[in-house]
Amino acid sequence: MARDAVFRSWQNERAKHYRRINNIDDMLGTAVNVQAMVFGNLGETSGTGVGFTRNPATGVKEFYGEFLMNAQGEDVVAGIRTPVHISELRKIMPQVYDQLREITTRLEKHYRDMQDFEFTIQEGKLYMLQTRNGKRTGLAAVKVALQMVEEGLITKEEAIFRVEPNQLYDFLVPRLDEKSGKVEVLATGLPASPGAAVGQIVFTADEAVKKAGHDRKNPVILVRAETTPEDIHGMEVAVGILTSRGGMTSHAAVVTRGMGKCCVAGAGDIHVDEKKREMHVKGQVFKEGDWLSLDGTTGRVIKGKLATLPPKADDPELLQLMGWAEPFRKLRVRANADIPRDAIQARAFGAEGIGLCRTEHMFFEKDRIPHMQAMILTDNEKDRRAALKKLLPMQRSDFIGVFRAMDGFPVTIRTLDPPLHEFLPRREELMVDIAILPHADAKEKKSLVEKYRRFGAKSASDLKKVMSGLLRRVEELHEFNPMLGHRGCRLGITYPEITEMQARAIFEAAVAVAKDGVKVFPEVMIPLTATLKEMANQAAIVNRIAQEVFTEKEQKVDYLVGTMIELPRAALVADEIAKESQFFSFGTNDLTQTTFGFSRDDVNKILPTYLAEGILKQDPFAVLDREGVGQLVKMATERGRKTRPDLKVGICGEHGGDPSSVEFCHQTGLNYVSCSPFRVLTARLAAAQAAATDKLKVEAGRTK
Amino acid sequence: MARDAVFRSWQNERAKHYRRINNIDDMLGTAVNVQAMVFGNLGETSGTGVGFTRNPATGVKEFYGEFLMNAQGEDVVAGIRTPVHISELRKIMPQVYDQLREITTRLEKHYRDMQDFEFTIQEGKLYMLQTRNGKRTGLAAVKVALQMVEEGLITKEEAIFRVEPNQLYDFLVPRLDEKSGKVEVLATGLPASPGAAVGQIVFTADEAVKKAGHDRKNPVILVRAETTPEDIHGMEVAVGILTSRGGMTSHAAVVTRGMGKCCVAGAGDIHVDEKKREMHVKGQVFKEGDWLSLDGTTGRVIKGKLATLPPKADDPELLQLMGWAEPFRKLRVRANADIPRDAIQARAFGAEGIGLCRTEHMFFEKDRIPHMQAMILTDNEKDRRAALKKLLPMQRSDFIGVFRAMDGFPVTIRTLDPPLHEFLPRREELMVDIAILPHADAKEKKSLVEKYRRFGAKSASDLKKVMSGLLRRVEELHEFNPMLGHRGCRLGITYPEITEMQARAIFEAAVAVAKDGVKVFPEVMIPLTATLKEMANQAAIVNRIAQEVFTEKEQKVDYLVGTMIELPRAALVADEIAKESQFFSFGTNDLTQTTFGFSRDDVNKILPTYLAEGILKQDPFAVLDREGVGQLVKMATERGRKTRPDLKVGICGEHGGDPSSVEFCHQTGLNYVSCSPFRVLTARLAAAQAAATDKLKVEAGRTK
Repeated sequence: MARDAVFRSWQNERAKHYRRINNIDDMLGTAVNVQAMVFGNLGETSGTGVGFTRNPATGVKEFYGEFLMNAQGEDVVAGIRTPVHISELRKIMPQVYDQLREITTRLEKHYRDMQDFEFTIQEGKLYMLQTRNGKRTGLAAVKVALQMVEEGLITKEEAIFRVEPNQLYDFLVPRLDEKSGKVEVLATGLPASPGAAVGQIVFTADEAVKKAGHDRKNPVILVRAETTPEDIHGMEVAVGILTSRGGMTSHAAVVTRGMGKCCVAGAGDIHVDEKKREMHVKGQVFKEGDWLSLDGTTGRVIKGKLATLPPKADDPELLQLMGWAEPFRKLRVRANADIPRDAIQARAFGAEGIGLCRTEHMFFEKDRIPHMQAMILTDNEKDRRAALKKLLPMQRSDFIGVFRAMDGFPVTIRTLDPPLHEFLPRREELMVDIAILPHADAKEKKSLVEKYRRFGAKSASDLKKVMSGLLRRVEELHEFNPMLGHRGCRLGITYPEITEMQARAIFEAAVAVAKDGVKVFPEVMIPLTATLKEMANQAAIVNRIAQEVFTEKEQKVDYLVGTMIELPRAALVADEIAKESQFFSFGTNDLTQTTFGFSRDDVNKILPTYLAEGILKQDPFAVLDREGVGQLVKMATERGRKTRPDLKVGICGEHGGDPSSVEFCHQTGLNYVSCSPFRVLTARLAAAQAAATDKLKVEAGRTK
Repeated sequence: MARDAVFRSWQNERAKHYRRINNIDDMLGTAVNVQAMVFGNLGETSGTGVGFTRNPATGVKEFYGEFLMNAQGEDVVAGIRTPVHISELRKIMPQVYDQLREITTRLEKHYRDMQDFEFTIQEGKLYMLQTRNGKRTGLAAVKVALQMVEEGLITKEEAIFRVEPNQLYDFLVPRLDEKSGKVEVLATGLPASPGAAVGQIVFTADEAVKKAGHDRKNPVILVRAETTPEDIHGMEVAVGILTSRGGMTSHAAVVTRGMGKCCVAGAGDIHVDEKKREMHVKGQVFKEGDWLSLDGTTGRVIKGKLATLPPKADDPELLQLMGWAEPFRKLRVRANADIPRDAIQARAFGAEGIGLCRTEHMFFEKDRIPHMQAMILTDNEKDRRAALKKLLPMQRSDFIGVFRAMDGFPVTIRTLDPPLHEFLPRREELMVDIAILPHADAKEKKSLVEKYRRFGAKSASDLKKVMSGLLRRVEELHEFNPMLGHRGCRLGITYPEITEMQARAIFEAAVAVAKDGVKVFPEVMIPLTATLKEMANQAAIVNRIAQEVFTEKEQKVDYLVGTMIELPRAALVADEIAKESQFFSFGTNDLTQTTFGFSRDDVNKILPTYLAEGILKQDPFAVLDREGVGQLVKMATERGRKTRPDLKVGICGEHGGDPSSVEFCHQTGLNYVSCSPFRVLTARLAAAQAAATDKLKVEAGRTK
């Protein structure tokens, strides 16, 4: 019976979940030790407790733990009785306390790591029940590693493995100060982007901007069912984002991680009524202006206003550890950054260039989207060129800012990628507006005129014509599967004038900063190529414009033209594509989508079942699938370098900041990884660990 | 100047188009011969003409052509003067006529093929301007090939190469009898599905059913902007389909080719007003009931009612030629057929089994879709099982019909593939209906009740609740990229009861027909696998149900469980997947979608530019992309057979009926191709030609 219970415990939901998140194979099974039982509940000279040899939250070297007299293990952790701080044991049973300290110190020395132990005192006699290396926060991990080097327990080389790269987030983001108030958890969502945020609720992006006010004086938390690119201006001013739908790779999650902004996503218990501007949870109703505290590191949504503790990116102990790690690193680490502000932030975290600057994010800005829409709505090249001409100086000034921030480092700029309909009103919204127009009263008509003013509506009498004209174009651009649609280099091939404008903005900016003495290395990146001819088509445009600008401005800069490898076909014919491509950057988000046939925006309908059934061990959008997608990465790298031995190869998908994926990139011989600014530190440590592992392996080989 | 003109002619639009459709490289260039000119316009003893050594339309051995006296070449073909039948030349200039016959007979013997020649008579003297192998219809190609074997001009082996496999369509479909009336071409669309159709216009599927009447007595042509799965019942009763939008792989095109029914797709000059039930073209308005003639072989839309000539699938000359070709063939040829009627048709055309039976098509039938919808709309397994139980006997009876039709041959049945929202009303339509509900009058409300009756609406007062409940579920199922969504084996994994029901239907049907002495070989095919574990999960269900049924019915049948390889990842890990998969069938439609990142439903927005710019040589959905997709097919075949040497490998995408793709499948060592019934004959000849080419190569090697 007992044996059965033990084996069953391997299969319980909690165990399955633990294995899943820690990537432990379901087939390993569990072992059973049979031993005598000791009892902590035999009276006042018995007791039981748990502890750590150092403080697992801060890393401070202090004996840390709690116990209960006349109690069994369950009583300590179950929360029915309140345990007592371990220092009290010294008063109650000084001998036992000293023995416990002596034993745990010995255990720490033996295992050369901070110990998490359990003990029982049976009628005055101490029994150790368990010891293991203790879990700790990032802050503690760094401090403990440094202390142990100082104490001569471990080497510096070992120390760099004592911190999990993902834990370095703890230094970069604010944390909730849980002692500052009552912690009432309303719901727990996905920890989509770490850190803490405390602010007043708003339900729309426009309201966020209004409420945040000048200089973002008022902290706001944007609460949405899910976010879309149209919410960007609101996300930028908010201190945190909360969504009731969407997963770790939803729009909200990806964008906030890029911004280093706290986000709790997919908090399913929360119902967001965007019309009424209300949030319902646990029978409570929250309205605009109510205070909320978010913990993006754990996914908790907390009622009311807690205080936050500031980030510690310049912590001297962190810098010390990184100083030991960095010399090992072979991979370069760049950041994905679209605007000068992010580039500056990334550089502060140690980014050695920009690996992905998405130009379309610039087009969603309020002052730009009208020109973008004008370009899309016209049916002729002349008007398209006129609209593009208005966008040119805006793009150029963005690039100037990014180049300046990255003085001395390369900047990879991707030409326009998303399908054009993303810049227009949503089809179903337009259809509904048209359907209700005949029934609209004067007030409703007025608000529709306002809504469609920028598409040419001047009065209620225009509405029908403007709206149906707009719908016609939206229908023309409508796609059943936009991810597989008219986007990426397909846009630049259909509308070469777009690539021309973008190339001109890049080279005019580069030449301008070069004249000021900035060391600028633009790398123009063509997205979504599948064939050599696409690459040749776009490279020819970029090179032609470069020469034009260099002649006009009488100044040259060095530059590269390359491509994103984000389709299986591109990987399969990488030897061909490399003929026209001076660098490859793996867009592993899209490559994962097409290799698996998973839409990133929809995969959360499938993923929970797949993880629960053990069909996938982890979300392939979070951790690179080495078996499948990785095969293509390896193939493309090898084939590309066969054609062009000096081909520069990097990765700029979400995986660029995931430690396991960084290790794979190191092993595959990539030149760099690029990730969101707030993952740069993580990527740097992960890359150093991967290289240090190589060195240790070589040394182990020599010793044999 | 002249030289310049010649070279320019290589670059004119017509030449580019010709090269594109005939897959001729743009880089070949053109050569120039300089020679003396002769004149056919020097008076009454001069003239010029064109001709064929045999009739290119029928293949009959007769001297065929036309000429004009006192004229140059352009005059004959330009249509300004009406040329005279070549037999008249015998009367006017008997000597020249005899000489022309002697020369052209000699040319035919020399080139061992029917000649298409041009000649000029300058002042009584005959000059040959040009001769080349003549283009001909499929009917003519077969007849000429047979005649030439009889005449000793060519061998039987050569004869089988004298017919292009695609030309065999001519034998299977009716043709327009252009002599039966005035031919007024209204528009030309894409020749989406060959054949001819003459009928009365209808604009909705329901109207098609109504108007076609009992036993489809009245021929109707369904005219739509584009068709969707909801139009299937109308497409089935129509004699032909005309759409104003969509390409060669649009829904209309694919479905009609499967049905062997004439279709002209994407006739852009036609404007279809589905609301008014009118078709506008060339300033003319056509209404329901007007007659139209379609030529699906050329894409012409003709006003009025022409007569048709019947198909000749049992033409003895065709059978003779196939009799010579068939012994070479190594690839098996199967058909894609979903219902017994198609299976019977396919077998008549020589199909050696079913390579793809799509079970979902069965669910769109009027008597079944309510159960399917009930299953989707419930939120618990119990109700889902209850709905599935109602579908079980319907599926079983379909399978019984298909198994009987294919007695002695294997039948591959694919488990449910499409995303569930395809079975529900469209999201945007529902949103519009909800938006206008508050403004609807009694009549409109009544029609909404009718529309939503099967979802539980009983009266106008129910509408709001029913519609918003339905929308909630539709929103839950809504996907941004359904092609990459919750479909394929992902359904069977989330809802194992669906796979269970389908497996039960398959095995109950198999056992039932086996008891009647039918030789039945079911192959259960799991769609859209990307990992070994998905395959193992579904195979376990199928095998368990098979054993259950065999035990219950006390009868066993042989069967296989395998998978469709239609995702790049499946090809990359084919060695793994083969551990649980007894056969592979390449779903090259989906594999092309994910390898290229092209959505088949949207690609027509990109393809015209890509073909015009020479970025693609041909539509990769029509002709298999050997360089990219082909690499994956080859890789998966090799890796799969490494694990399982006897792995049966086939292809069941649209490419299975394309001659060039069939050749590739032969070269790659596949076991079979599967295509729509009306392409079986084409595939058989293409497979024979590919194998005969091998044999000729081996022989050529030996002679050296």
